[in-house]
Amino acid sequence: MAGSKGKVLLAYSGGLDTSCILAWLIEQGYETLAYIADVGQEEDFETIRAKALAVGASKVFVEDLKKEFVEELIFPAIQANAIYESVYLLGTSLARPVIARRQIEIATREGCKYVSHGCTGKGNDQVRFELAYYALNHDIEVIAPWRLPVFFNRFQGRPDLLAFAADKGIPVVQTAAKPWSTDENLFHISYEAGILEDPNVTPPKDMWKLTVDPEDAPNKPERITITFDKGIPVKVVNNDDKTVVTEPVALFTYLNTVARRNGVGRIDIVESRFIGVKSRGCYETPGGTILRTAHKDLEGLTLDGQLRALRDQSITIPYSRCLYNGQYFSPECEFLNKSIPLTQVNVTGDVKLKLYKGNTIIEGRVARGPGSKLYNIRESSMDEQGGYNPEDADGFIKVHSIRLKKWTPTEQF
Amino acid sequence: MAGSKGKVLLAYSGGLDTSCILAWLIEQGYETLAYIADVGQEEDFETIRAKALAVGASKVFVEDLKKEFVEELIFPAIQANAIYESVYLLGTSLARPVIARRQIEIATREGCKYVSHGCTGKGNDQVRFELAYYALNHDIEVIAPWRLPVFFNRFQGRPDLLAFAADKGIPVVQTAAKPWSTDENLFHISYEAGILEDPNVTPPKDMWKLTVDPEDAPNKPERITITFDKGIPVKVVNNDDKTVVTEPVALFTYLNTVARRNGVGRIDIVESRFIGVKSRGCYETPGGTILRTAHKDLEGLTLDGQLRALRDQSITIPYSRCLYNGQYFSPECEFLNKSIPLTQVNVTGDVKLKLYKGNTIIEGRVARGPGSKLYNIRESSMDEQGGYNPEDADGFIKVHSIRLKKWTPTEQF
Amino acid sequence: MAGSKGKVLLAYSGGLDTSCILAWLIEQGYETLAYIADVGQEEDFETIRAKALAVGASKVFVEDLKKEFVEELIFPAIQANAIYESVYLLGTSLARPVIARRQIEIATREGCKYVSHGCTGKGNDQVRFELAYYALNHDIEVIAPWRLPVFFNRFQGRPDLLAFAADKGIPVVQTAAKPWSTDENLFHISYEAGILEDPNVTPPKDMWKLTVDPEDAPNKPERITITFDKGIPVKVVNNDDKTVVTEPVALFTYLNTVARRNGVGRIDIVESRFIGVKSRGCYETPGGTILRTAHKDLEGLTLDGQLRALRDQSITIPYSRCLYNGQYFSPECEFLNKSIPLTQVNVTGDVKLKLYKGNTIIEGRVARGPGSKLYNIRESSMDEQGGYNPEDADGFIKVHSIRLKKWTPTEQF
Amino acid sequence: MAGSKGKVLLAYSGGLDTSCILAWLIEQGYETLAYIADVGQEEDFETIRAKALAVGASKVFVEDLKKEFVEELIFPAIQANAIYESVYLLGTSLARPVIARRQIEIATREGCKYVSHGCTGKGNDQVRFELAYYALNHDIEVIAPWRLPVFFNRFQGRPDLLAFAADKGIPVVQTAAKPWSTDENLFHISYEAGILEDPNVTPPKDMWKLTVDPEDAPNKPERITITFDKGIPVKVVNNDDKTVVTEPVALFTYLNTVARRNGVGRIDIVESRFIGVKSRGCYETPGGTILRTAHKDLEGLTLDGQLRALRDQSITIPYSRCLYNGQYFSPECEFLNKSIPLTQVNVTGDVKLKLYKGNTIIEGRVARGPGSKLYNIRESSMDEQGGYNPEDADGFIKVHSIRLKKWTPTEQF
Repeated sequence: MAGSKGKVLLAYSGGLDTSCILAWLIEQGYETLAYIADVGQEEDFETIRAKALAVGASKVFVEDLKKEFVEELIFPAIQANAIYESVYLLGTSLARPVIARRQIEIATREGCKYVSHGCTGKGNDQVRFELAYYALNHDIEVIAPWRLPVFFNRFQGRPDLLAFAADKGIPVVQTAAKPWSTDENLFHISYEAGILEDPNVTPPKDMWKLTVDPEDAPNKPERITITFDKGIPVKVVNNDDKTVVTEPVALFTYLNTVARRNGVGRIDIVESRFIGVKSRGCYETPGGTILRTAHKDLEGLTLDGQLRALRDQSITIPYSRCLYNGQYFSPECEFLNKSIPLTQVNVTGDVKLKLYKGNTIIEGRVARGPGSKLYNIRESSMDEQGGYNPEDADGFIKVHSIRLKKWTPTEQF
Repeated sequence: MAGSKGKVLLAYSGGLDTSCILAWLIEQGYETLAYIADVGQEEDFETIRAKALAVGASKVFVEDLKKEFVEELIFPAIQANAIYESVYLLGTSLARPVIARRQIEIATREGCKYVSHGCTGKGNDQVRFELAYYALNHDIEVIAPWRLPVFFNRFQGRPDLLAFAADKGIPVVQTAAKPWSTDENLFHISYEAGILEDPNVTPPKDMWKLTVDPEDAPNKPERITITFDKGIPVKVVNNDDKTVVTEPVALFTYLNTVARRNGVGRIDIVESRFIGVKSRGCYETPGGTILRTAHKDLEGLTLDGQLRALRDQSITIPYSRCLYNGQYFSPECEFLNKSIPLTQVNVTGDVKLKLYKGNTIIEGRVARGPGSKLYNIRESSMDEQGGYNPEDADGFIKVHSIRLKKWTPTEQF
Repeated sequence: MAGSKGKVLLAYSGGLDTSCILAWLIEQGYETLAYIADVGQEEDFETIRAKALAVGASKVFVEDLKKEFVEELIFPAIQANAIYESVYLLGTSLARPVIARRQIEIATREGCKYVSHGCTGKGNDQVRFELAYYALNHDIEVIAPWRLPVFFNRFQGRPDLLAFAADKGIPVVQTAAKPWSTDENLFHISYEAGILEDPNVTPPKDMWKLTVDPEDAPNKPERITITFDKGIPVKVVNNDDKTVVTEPVALFTYLNTVARRNGVGRIDIVESRFIGVKSRGCYETPGGTILRTAHKDLEGLTLDGQLRALRDQSITIPYSRCLYNGQYFSPECEFLNKSIPLTQVNVTGDVKLKLYKGNTIIEGRVARGPGSKLYNIRESSMDEQGGYNPEDADGFIKVHSIRLKKWTPTEQF
Repeated sequence: MAGSKGKVLLAYSGGLDTSCILAWLIEQGYETLAYIADVGQEEDFETIRAKALAVGASKVFVEDLKKEFVEELIFPAIQANAIYESVYLLGTSLARPVIARRQIEIATREGCKYVSHGCTGKGNDQVRFELAYYALNHDIEVIAPWRLPVFFNRFQGRPDLLAFAADKGIPVVQTAAKPWSTDENLFHISYEAGILEDPNVTPPKDMWKLTVDPEDAPNKPERITITFDKGIPVKVVNNDDKTVVTEPVALFTYLNTVARRNGVGRIDIVESRFIGVKSRGCYETPGGTILRTAHKDLEGLTLDGQLRALRDQSITIPYSRCLYNGQYFSPECEFLNKSIPLTQVNVTGDVKLKLYKGNTIIEGRVARGPGSKLYNIRESSMDEQGGYNPEDADGFIKVHSIRLKKWTPTEQF
């Protein structure tokens, strides 16, 4: 009987997969509510809402999560210089916590015993969603159709889904399917699978959606200045047209705009998924790439070298791993989240950047507040200033040599 | 009396500073031998040799260290992805060990009680040279004139040096002094001091020596393929003109050539010197930038994710710190040097790159040998293959959730 | 039909559980071979062999693994100062690799498609065994009865097993079951479960099997000297009765003997299992406790401080985690295994110890070989020697203060 | 002229060295104020005060720092499980920050341009004091007589000091000088130098001052229970005589008392000083040893395993290094100090201990508050409970095996 198995809140995208899952959950006897998270992807959310209702969702929730995504996830990741395997800026990972958190909030409020999603059984996202679900609601149950034999044996490929959609009257947009799959949010877009599965295939020029090809970007550079306050970007000024933005979402969106038109933020990598499988992904992270470059630069000027070194090992690495592996809602990541601002007290000032055909070029930086004490021109320069006299270096070096004078290489160096 | 104080081997560059030091050492009563290290900087070494003799050096040694520089320092640094403060590729640091090692070898062979150099008392290089000296010869004594009051009080600025040079008959090239200082080797060139001491000053366009300005680089990209064997680059092919290079120095020099003409490898940073002073440096590392990008990419395909994570924390960070801080010849760096190859067993294959106006863009990669087993197209793809079935992920996630279900955030997330 | 499902090699202990598993596997149609690993536990292996045959094993293998256990696992763990959560010496973890490796060797040789074990579904050992199996034979299949519903639903408690044993004619030793379970090998014994599950219950005096209660140990201390060669123990001398042992297994067994009679090596902890569950365990590691104490002490004298600090972070922690989590046969642990000896080049010398009622007290140490250069009496003492003069410390401190003089606490310290 | 060089505040102990330094500073023309820090060492502070005045101090300050020592240094060190080179509990290091801080406070208030101390030029303490001085008062100047040639050349040994003392009328206590030197505070006492400089010499029985020899300790164990609240010890109960203490200094002093009479807390090590020299030290840390053991044990029960592992690498190691190397007042240590409590939210409960002839034996533990959720008897036990079913482990192991099945050992394991 319809809905007899209880309520399930499905993370719904409007695409073929989650539309079929929605219909299938109803068919299986669940009362199914649809949840659509707006994390900045370019979509017509009202069309998606209508489609969910048409397929049979008993309620539909379209949630604007952009502000919390920017303020609670993106900005701390910038503060921490988060990066995975030295290359990937974690765009998909960063959106998952806000999506899952709101899903659990709604599921709890609506009395849903279950939550569901359309992730495959081989990726990272199933882990990210479900660990967040379980951490935030210890009693929630998860329906992951792509891991259920009854589902994946029935739907063995796109034709099976299309047939089911036709059967259930699910409208299917008649665009040619792209030979890759994507995931988009305000921070980035990812491309994977399909023709990209051969890691030696160069992505086709028309795959890249967010950014212009560097070869097609303007011949004239564009210059901006980003102001940080304790590691948080608080102002962007376009030095050419004098645009100024300060509100977090607007600021980040504006950085996306200038980065996109200058071809900034593309990468193509093979990464190690949490489950131990290697996979190839292409990503565009336009505004995030600029912010990361600028933030690291300002840290050079304002962050004590020892604190920076400690942070690089003690926060950047484990925080990035927590994000990638879906353990944002965990004791250790809560600890890291609270530690990040403690490192950013001095990271205040402006960074000047030039954007040009894929490049993000630093053109100068100024510190403000207590962090401005760390760099001292006279001390750095060749004149003797700043309480330092050259003979001190003598003792410094001699003391450092003490233990080295007891060392003999085991082989000839 | 001339030479009565014993023999000193001076690291000699041919410039004003070390020429005055050479004359001064002789004046102080040392028999002074000059040592000129060829680590790939663009110089006329025979002219420098002649100048040293003219100033009064009792012997002059011009040593070609390029091969050991490339094979023993640059390539291991690439294997280890060495980087300082997430930005600086350690170009100056990398040359110091080979320079100091040969200086000690010659000093020992020639019976010199002393070695000398022209480094200032505020920088990293004095530390790098002297710790290497002491580690390799426990009895050597160092004369660092710029830290001796008798020297630095006498020579308080360029005019004093010029006057002394005139007095001693030291020829001075009548080029206008640049408003910054540089250090060059096969791997990179650095610019610092002078007008660069204000970290908000954009470096002038004509400062950059090695690379063309990205804005002036060709409009047509250039494509190369780099082959690595256990993390060591062994072949570069230019896919446009079919140039092939394999010998280490030639290979690295060729990468410099293609990178330079495509504007690859500029950075501008403020860094934390070992002695605790912040300083601003601009660097060009053309070939090194390409190699680093390519090597990291191939590791994505061929290096186990857990081993990579361990290496990033356990080798990359401390190895980079050892290099920067001048502790290459030390027990811990000897250990790290021996550990690096253990991580590179599988890092064999080809990486395709496109160079374009400052960008180094990955266009594909292929693994060879045992490392080719790590990426499995069928396993990564949505089909069920590779001994993996989607239900396994269920248990994986459930077990990972066990501890998370015992956690309650201390504040509302 | 008997054996129709193919061959399985069962890790067999002779106890009730694995005897029932043996009979059950036969009942299910497997030809079942029994494998008994001698890792130093106190057992009558011939009786176990006979029992396996009586229950129906088609072949039985009793394998003496003590030598490889000591040389390949215990000694490297001592060299690396391996420890889990700062307390647990990893006794169970250390035996698993040698047991699993031989099991795979025999299974492969005997043409077994399957291996099996009697581990429960909640512990670490299932992970340790199976990850080793899969790593060493990528095609092996594992039968883990305690995770199969058909098995664990049938055998829900000891009475079910006893009834099955009676039915199958499996002899059961009529000793009263202890209210805890144990796992023993040459390195240690563990106690867990039963009455120990309440972490506030003090283990009963008669639980501890290997060591005498410190309160009952001799009133007179016993003194030994351990000689290490590159971090490996190569000789133990009893300074009271002049016993000398050098062969690895004999040496380790002798250390067990003296530690046991002096009450050395008991711990009682709550630990974090790999699967995320906390569990309480009590352990006796008599000889291992002495070796660890002695080895750390000799490192104090012979291991460079910076290398030691690096090793503590880069090897000790990840190596211990690999061992605990069952990832000994993995790319990262292979790397660590090869790195360990690189740190031990200088760790050669003697350590004098006094054993007394649970205490392992260092009474002195001597270095031999190159490591003897690191400690220099005159340099450490107040006299001015060793190329060091007190004024050097001045510069050392002043340079270290440079960055501190740019720091202002964010709050009043 | 007396006092013409300005004011200096001397850290004064009342011993021969600092008494001579006091007289010497006056002789040199400084107005010298004496500062005596009471960090719990067993001294007659009024006698020391009188002596300082008698020698010529213009003012004397006796400061009771015990409360801040316990609350701000000892307790955080316990929370962080601080330890140096796996053995040393940092007793001397921990006292230095509170001593130096008060010295700077007084010096600033009294208008002293200088501070002075009696540390030698080879040890850690000169670094710890002076880096703290410079960090807390960027303009302070330090007079370190034992690094001044004019001083150390004049006073080349004890006879010179005694002659000077006689000359200046400084009373010298006529006890035989011990053949080692000590430093004592509430947390510990250290012994070094003299006969201890031979690392193979067993310390004489009568050296140890704070603790009874384990061989002479009572034959009957003593039992206590320590209660922690968020990692801070808040109550100690003696289970035999029902003594209860809760005030921080009293609590720590009481732990010292029971530990001392049971022979707890002796170590004998060779350590790596910050300046690169190895030195041998013997230490007694009675109460601290008990607290460390108890705190680690309670963390086993209440601290999430992943958070613990992160803390062990990210806080315990760098925090211990900061303390040892005298960088407590630094950007990175301020960060660490603020991070420590973030890890201790759940570390609340009781630990039962038995003290017996040098042993600190855990007899049980109970968690209270949110940390009590981490250990779940039913889940740890063999029954199926806690949302866990044994089949989940199957997927967990299979997924973990994915990457291992792509690995082939480079040599035969």
